[in-house]
Amino acid sequence: MSSTFGTLFRVTTFGESHGKGVGAVVDGCPPDMELTESDIQVQLDRRRPGQSRLSTDRSEADRVTILSGVEHHRTLGTPIGLMVRNKDQRPGDYAGFDPIPRPSHADYTYQMKYGIRARSGGGRSSARETIGRVVAGAIAEKFLAQVYGVEIVAWVSAVEHIEAPDVDMHTITRAAIDATPVRCPDRDTAAKMTAAIHGARDDKDSMGGIITCVCRNVPAGWGEPVFDKAEAKLAQAMLSVPATKGFEIGSGFSGTRLRGSQHNDPFVKKDKRLGTSSNLSGGIQGGITNGEPIYFRVAFKPPATIGKAQQTVDFDGNDVILEARGRHDPCVVPRAVPIVETMAALVLGDLALRQRTRI
Amino acid sequence: MSSTFGTLFRVTTFGESHGKGVGAVVDGCPPDMELTESDIQVQLDRRRPGQSRLSTDRSEADRVTILSGVEHHRTLGTPIGLMVRNKDQRPGDYAGFDPIPRPSHADYTYQMKYGIRARSGGGRSSARETIGRVVAGAIAEKFLAQVYGVEIVAWVSAVEHIEAPDVDMHTITRAAIDATPVRCPDRDTAAKMTAAIHGARDDKDSMGGIITCVCRNVPAGWGEPVFDKAEAKLAQAMLSVPATKGFEIGSGFSGTRLRGSQHNDPFVKKDKRLGTSSNLSGGIQGGITNGEPIYFRVAFKPPATIGKAQQTVDFDGNDVILEARGRHDPCVVPRAVPIVETMAALVLGDLALRQRTRI
Amino acid sequence: MSSTFGTLFRVTTFGESHGKGVGAVVDGCPPDMELTESDIQVQLDRRRPGQSRLSTDRSEADRVTILSGVEHHRTLGTPIGLMVRNKDQRPGDYAGFDPIPRPSHADYTYQMKYGIRARSGGGRSSARETIGRVVAGAIAEKFLAQVYGVEIVAWVSAVEHIEAPDVDMHTITRAAIDATPVRCPDRDTAAKMTAAIHGARDDKDSMGGIITCVCRNVPAGWGEPVFDKAEAKLAQAMLSVPATKGFEIGSGFSGTRLRGSQHNDPFVKKDKRLGTSSNLSGGIQGGITNGEPIYFRVAFKPPATIGKAQQTVDFDGNDVILEARGRHDPCVVPRAVPIVETMAALVLGDLALRQRTRI
Amino acid sequence: MSSTFGTLFRVTTFGESHGKGVGAVVDGCPPDMELTESDIQVQLDRRRPGQSRLSTDRSEADRVTILSGVEHHRTLGTPIGLMVRNKDQRPGDYAGFDPIPRPSHADYTYQMKYGIRARSGGGRSSARETIGRVVAGAIAEKFLAQVYGVEIVAWVSAVEHIEAPDVDMHTITRAAIDATPVRCPDRDTAAKMTAAIHGARDDKDSMGGIITCVCRNVPAGWGEPVFDKAEAKLAQAMLSVPATKGFEIGSGFSGTRLRGSQHNDPFVKKDKRLGTSSNLSGGIQGGITNGEPIYFRVAFKPPATIGKAQQTVDFDGNDVILEARGRHDPCVVPRAVPIVETMAALVLGDLALRQRTRI
Repeated sequence: MSSTFGTLFRVTTFGESHGKGVGAVVDGCPPDMELTESDIQVQLDRRRPGQSRLSTDRSEADRVTILSGVEHHRTLGTPIGLMVRNKDQRPGDYAGFDPIPRPSHADYTYQMKYGIRARSGGGRSSARETIGRVVAGAIAEKFLAQVYGVEIVAWVSAVEHIEAPDVDMHTITRAAIDATPVRCPDRDTAAKMTAAIHGARDDKDSMGGIITCVCRNVPAGWGEPVFDKAEAKLAQAMLSVPATKGFEIGSGFSGTRLRGSQHNDPFVKKDKRLGTSSNLSGGIQGGITNGEPIYFRVAFKPPATIGKAQQTVDFDGNDVILEARGRHDPCVVPRAVPIVETMAALVLGDLALRQRTRI
Repeated sequence: MSSTFGTLFRVTTFGESHGKGVGAVVDGCPPDMELTESDIQVQLDRRRPGQSRLSTDRSEADRVTILSGVEHHRTLGTPIGLMVRNKDQRPGDYAGFDPIPRPSHADYTYQMKYGIRARSGGGRSSARETIGRVVAGAIAEKFLAQVYGVEIVAWVSAVEHIEAPDVDMHTITRAAIDATPVRCPDRDTAAKMTAAIHGARDDKDSMGGIITCVCRNVPAGWGEPVFDKAEAKLAQAMLSVPATKGFEIGSGFSGTRLRGSQHNDPFVKKDKRLGTSSNLSGGIQGGITNGEPIYFRVAFKPPATIGKAQQTVDFDGNDVILEARGRHDPCVVPRAVPIVETMAALVLGDLALRQRTRI
Repeated sequence: MSSTFGTLFRVTTFGESHGKGVGAVVDGCPPDMELTESDIQVQLDRRRPGQSRLSTDRSEADRVTILSGVEHHRTLGTPIGLMVRNKDQRPGDYAGFDPIPRPSHADYTYQMKYGIRARSGGGRSSARETIGRVVAGAIAEKFLAQVYGVEIVAWVSAVEHIEAPDVDMHTITRAAIDATPVRCPDRDTAAKMTAAIHGARDDKDSMGGIITCVCRNVPAGWGEPVFDKAEAKLAQAMLSVPATKGFEIGSGFSGTRLRGSQHNDPFVKKDKRLGTSSNLSGGIQGGITNGEPIYFRVAFKPPATIGKAQQTVDFDGNDVILEARGRHDPCVVPRAVPIVETMAALVLGDLALRQRTRI
Repeated sequence: MSSTFGTLFRVTTFGESHGKGVGAVVDGCPPDMELTESDIQVQLDRRRPGQSRLSTDRSEADRVTILSGVEHHRTLGTPIGLMVRNKDQRPGDYAGFDPIPRPSHADYTYQMKYGIRARSGGGRSSARETIGRVVAGAIAEKFLAQVYGVEIVAWVSAVEHIEAPDVDMHTITRAAIDATPVRCPDRDTAAKMTAAIHGARDDKDSMGGIITCVCRNVPAGWGEPVFDKAEAKLAQAMLSVPATKGFEIGSGFSGTRLRGSQHNDPFVKKDKRLGTSSNLSGGIQGGITNGEPIYFRVAFKPPATIGKAQQTVDFDGNDVILEARGRHDPCVVPRAVPIVETMAALVLGDLALRQRTRI
C-alpha cells in the first residue's frame, strides 16, 4: 500500500467500500487559512453517486467531518483529519461474487498481492476510495484559490465515440460544466452523451470517456525536475485514479505528428512577464510551469462491472458465466470530474509549497 | 529539484550538460548480485548520440565508472556510485543563446524557478541528464532479469505520421529492434521513418514520435495502491523523461471507445495460475500487475531546438529571430528507446522490492 | 508538520487536545494478520491518565475504533484507520492561558512557527497527541510478536534522584512493571518514587525521570545504514516524544568512560549463531541489530505545567506571574512507558519490513 | 541501505573504505548561492586523519571535486555532485581479518544483513563513509551562515574521565577549538586529554569521549512536529554517526533530576522578541526552535579496533585471539568534531527550508 501522496502538502487516505468510514489526513496545509466543512462538502457532493439517472442510485448522503487541525474555522498548521462515514453498505448484494474474480477488476490482483481481500464489494479498489482524495484535494483547491487565484476546471470531453467540440480554456467555468449531469459544457454533445449512456445501461453494458482539465493562474516556476516534474506528478496522480488508462499534457499524442517549427510555442511579451502565443506545451516546459494555462486529458476505460453475461473462470480455473447484480455505474466519467480536479489540486498544492523554499 | 526516484530501489541522479560529469547513486540494490561496468555500458552505448546520421554527431564516448558499492564484481548492498565524465563540451557553440529563451525549451522556466540558469547549453534540462537514469536503470534491469526473468523491450512505433504495424509483444527482442538505427522492428516502416528524419534534418526542422514498451514475465502482485499503482509510477517515470507529452497503458485512449463487454479481459486457466485471454488492461488491474505482459506507449514531441528561423522575444521582451546553431537531433525517439526501458526497470525494480515485504 | 513516520510500516497521526478526535492511519501493515480493537486497547489503557493518584484525574475513557483496513478481524493490507474521540474537553480551564506563553511549553514556538495556535490547551503539543502513536504502535507490536516473537518491555528506572536497581533484561515482563502504578519493577524503589511524586504534587511542582526499554528476540540484520541505523531511528522516535531530553543505547554516556578493551563485546558461540558474552553495544553494531537484546534509556524532563507561581512575561513582553490551574501530571514518566514501547515497535516494525527486501 | 537524509535539503552519500571514491549528492540546495570547492575543503581538512599523533597517520590528502550543480561559483539549484577519490587503500593490511568478525565492529552484522560484506576494511561501516556527510554538510553550513548568520561550533568536552569545564556557548569559536589538536578549548584539559590518548595508544587500547555542539542565531520556528521535531532529527543525525552511543539536548539526562520550577525557562523580553532567561530547553521547545542557542552533547564509545589481544570467536564459532594490525585511531572524538557540526548543519538546513513553506 502506498496511501500517502505529496512531499509538503501531503495527504494520506484510508478506507474501503464496506468498513466504518473513509477519509484522509492532510499534513502540511498552510496555517491560518479559513476552512469549513462546507468548503470540502462542495466537491464531495459533486462526486456523489445518485445525482441523476446517469449513475448508480445508491443514496450515499456522504458528509465530511473535520476531526482535527482546524479551530474556529482557521487551519492550525497541524494535520487535518477528515472522515466520511460509510452508511449504505448492503453487503449481501455482493456475496455471490466471492469465488469468481471479476474480469478487469482488482479481485484477482488484490488476492495475488495480499493473499487476502475484502469479501464484500471492491474493498480498497472500490470507487469509494476516491472520497479520501476528494476531501483532501478540496482543501488544496481552497489554498490554491486563496493564495494564488488558481482555478481548476475539468469536464467530460468524450464519451465513447462522442467528442465535445473545443471549449475556451480561458473562460470555461464549473457552473457551465455542471449545467448538465453528464458534465459536458456543450449542450448538444451533452444530450448525445446522455442518450448513449442510457443506451449502455439498457444493454447492461458500460462506457468509457475522456476528461479534459485546465488549471489557470498557476504562476511560472512550479515543478521539481527531474523526477517530480509538474507533468510527471500530474500523470502519476491521474493514473492513480481508478479506471484510468492514459494521460496527455498539452499537445499530447497528437503533438507527435507535428514538426518542431509547428509545435514550438513562440515567446511574446504579456504585461510584465513573458508568455507564449500558442500553448502546445500545455503550460509546462522542462517540467516547470511557465505561467500559461495547464491543460491535460485523462482516458477512462468503461467500468469493469457490467450486468451483461461474461464467460470467465473462477479462482480454481473452472468455467463460469458471470452476470453482475447490484448497483453499478454505466459510465463513471461525469462523477470523475471532481476527482480529476482535486487530484490536480493535490499536485499543484504540493508543488506550490516546494517552490516556496527558493524564495 | 527532485532528483531521487523510488522507495526501496532508489536512484539519485546528478549532472548537467557542461559540468565535470553526470551520474547516479543507486541505493537499495539487492546485495550479492553480479555486476560489472559492461552490464551498464550496454544501455549507455544504445543511448549515445552519434550512432548514425539520424542523430547528432557529437562523439561522446561515454564510459561509466562504478565508484562504490561493488567489490570483486558483486554488489555489497551499499550505495552504488556511478559516474560518466563530460568530455565534449564546446561551450562556445551555445554562447549566443543566452539572452533569448529558446521556445518550448526550459530556459525561461528554469530562470523563473531558480533565478539563475546554466549559461551554456540546457544545463540540467539537457538530454545529457538522462545518462544518470540509464546507468541506474541498467542495474535495475539486471536485477529484474536475474531474479524474475523480466524482459523489457521498447521500440519506435511511430515517427510523425508514419506508424509501425503491430508487433508480437510476446516475442519481440532488442536484437530485432536494434537491427535498424531508427529502432523500428518493421524494416519497411524503418526505412520510411529514416527517410522522413533525413527530410526533417534537411528542412532544419524536427520530428516527434511514439515509443511502445513491453515488460514480460513480471509476476502478479507488483504495484502499490492507491497512489503508487504500477501504471501511476510508470506514468510518472515516463512523463519525467525530457520531451514526453503522453502515456497510455494497455488500451489507452482508444480503450475509451470500447464498451465494457468488449474491454474486459476474461480470465482463463494458464498452467497453474489464472491469466486473461485478451490483455486490454496492459498487464495491470487495480494498479497491480496480473502476470500478463505490461505494455504502454509514450508520446515524444518534436525537439524544441531547430535550425529553422523562429520569431520570438528575448528575456526583455524584444522581438528577435532565433536560428539554432550547434548540434541537435532532428528526432530523439530512436535514442530514447533505452531511456524508456531503463525507466521502466527503475519502476519495476522498486515495486518488486516493495512487494517482498509481504512474503 | 511532519506527522508521518516510517518507510514501509508507516504511521500518520492526527489530532490535538481539543478537536473531535485523535487517531492514526497505519499504512503497510502486513496483510492477513489477526487484529481486533482489544489488541490495541490494551496499550491505550496503559497510557490513559487517571489510573491512580500519580497522574491527572481526568476520566478520559479513551476507546479506539478501527475505521478501515480490517475485515472479520484480519488485516487486509490496506491502510488501517484508527480513531479515538475526544470527550472530556473542558476548554474553560485553559482560557486564561492565552496571552501568556507558558515557560518551557510550546505556546511560544507554535505561535512563531505557524503564526496561529490552538486557543485552548496544548493543541498538537498536548500529551493527547501521543494517542495516535500508541494505537499505531500497538499494531506494530502485534506484528512483531506474532511473526518474530519480539518482546518489548519498558519501565521507570529513575524518578528525579531515585534510581531503580538493575533488572534482568532477559526476564523482565510487563506484568512485573504494572504491579505498581509508578511502573518501577522494584517494589521498594517504586514506593519511594510514589512518595516523591506525591510530594511534588503537594508542592505544586513536577518531576522528571528516566525510562529504560528492552527489546528481546529481535533477529540480527535489522537497521538501515547509514542514516536509518537502528539506534538512529530509535533516537529520533524517542526524542519525538513530548518532554524527552536524551537517549542512550547500550552503554550510552557511561560507555565514554571505558577503554575499548573493556567496552568491546567479545563474540561467543550461542546455539547455531554467534552471540556476544557482554552487551555494551545494546544489541546494535554498525547500526544493525546483532541478535542480542536491544536496550536504551530515555530522559524525560519535569513537565512544564506547574501550579507553582512563575515569573515570566506575556506575548507583549509584560511581566506576569503565572500559576497553572486545571489538571496536570506532576510526573509523566509512568504513563510514558507504553508510549516508549509503542514507538520502539514502530521503529522495529519498519526495519523488519525493510530487511525483508533482501531475502 | 538508507543513504539519503533530509526532506528538502537532501543529501545522498555513497562510498566505502576501499572503492574508487566516496562522495555525496546534495539536492535542494538553494540556487544562486556562492560556492567553491574550498568552502567545502575546510571541513574536509578538519576531518582528515593524520593531523597529529592523536590520530592514525594515514596520509589521505582528501580533495573534494564538485562534479555538477555549480557554474562560475554559483549554485544552479540543481543537484550538486561531490567526489573524493580513495587514494591510500593498502588492502593487504586487513587481509587477515576476514574470517573473524571484529568485536563491537560491524563485520558480523553486515554479514547477517546483506549476506556479503566488503572483504577489506570496514567497507561502508568504515569512518571513511563520513566524508560524504562532511562535504554535504559543509554546503549546508554555508547556506545557513549566509542567509541566517547561523554559527555551529562543536568541541571535545570529555575524553574518558577527563571533562572540560563549561565554556561560554555564546562566544566559543572554531578558532579556539582548533587551537589544540584534541579540539578541547580549555588548554589545561586539552593537555590532559592529549596525554591520556597517548597513554591509550601505548596500551594498544582506545578511548571514548563526548562532543558538545552549539548552534547560534537559529531563528525561532524551525522543527517539524511531531516526528521531525528539531531535537528528534538532531538525535537521528548524531546517532547515525559511527561509534555514537547517546544524545542529549539542553539539560539532557541531568535535567531529569530537576523540579519543573527549576527546569522551566522563564520568558523575558529581548529586543523585539521574547527570549528566555535560562536555557535548559537547549533552544528547542515542543520540537521547534525558540531563538535561543541550541546545544547538545553526543557520546562516542571507544573505537572497536584495538591492538590489544582480544578473546573472541571466528564466524564458525571457533575460539581465536584477535590483535588488530594496521592503522587505527585510539580516540576518534577530535576528528569527529567537524562530523557533528556538518550533521547538525544538514538537519538545520533542511528544517530551514521546510519552514519557508509557511511564509
